[in-house]
This record gives sequence, structure tokens and C-alpha cells, in this order.
Amino acid sequence: MKKVTVFITLKQGVLDPQGKAIQTSLHSLGFQEVEDARVGKYIELHVEDHENVDERVKEMCDKLLANPVIEDYRFEVEEAVRS
Amino acid sequence: MKKVTVFITLKQGVLDPQGKAIQTSLHSLGFQEVEDARVGKYIELHVEDHENVDERVKEMCDKLLANPVIEDYRFEVEEAVRS
Repeated sequence: MKKVTVFITLKQGVLDPQGKAIQTSLHSLGFQEVEDARVGKYIELHVEDHENVDERVKEMCDKLLANPVIEDYRFEVEEAVRS
Repeated sequence: MKKVTVFITLKQGVLDPQGKAIQTSLHSLGFQEVEDARVGKYIELHVEDHENVDERVKEMCDKLLANPVIEDYRFEVEEAVRS
């Protein structure tokens, strides 16, 4: 079993209203030191072992998990530690 | 300037409808090998330098970024590389 962690972030230059809202809220709570906030998705998958896990995960990202027009993605594959 | 990356995930045992929806969609696209999917948030902050950045970020998470009832969080602090 493999644990795959996918990080999906908005491409540079794409407006991030959620990030702006977080930055404004942090400022109103007194955290003036925050200059910029950007929000993305973080997906953890447990995937059965087989040889081309990386290719399959890339396909999953391209087909479903990430929107190629406005999002970038990267992923990490490691041995799953079942809790 | 520091770059802070915050990972917010649902606590073990908390139902994850978004994760379930992703798993079902991946199966319908032919990715049967996916056994489990859980979705979280990934927030990148740029924060001005000062001594207790870790404490301040912990406060930001406790007060705003994470819901302590259903979510866990962890964060990483590194030197910011401005692009």
C-alpha cells in the first residue's frame, strides 16, 4: 500500500479570493505581519501497490484532482503506515 | 520574510464526504486501486520576520485557520524565496 499526498495550488497570477479573505481576517485579529496568504488543496490517497503508481497519480491529477487551467499540482509517494 | 506552509486535515474518524466523492469519481474513471481519499487545506503565508514566528502561526491556526473540533494542523516555516 502506498500513501500519496497531492498538493494543489493556484497558479501564480490567478486571483485567490479565499487567500485574500484569510489575510484580511488575520489582520483584523492583529496578525499584521502576514503579507500574503494563498489557499490550496491537500489530498491524501491510499493506493494499492503496483509498478507505475507515479504515472497513474499524474493521470488522476490531470483528469480529476486538479484544474489544469488555474491550478498547479505536485505529489509525493511513500509507503503507507496504516494507523 | 518567512514562508509558512500550513497543512490542515480532518481528524481521524471524522467523516470526509469530499474525500468519499473523490474516491468514487476516481473509481468511475477506472482508478480502482484507490482505497481511500481524504481532503484537507494547504495554506501558504508570507510573514514578516520576527523572533516568535512559530508561536504566532500556532495562534493563527488556533484562532482562525483550523477548526480545533474536527481538524488537526501542522506547519513548516522556511526562508521565503520571492519569485
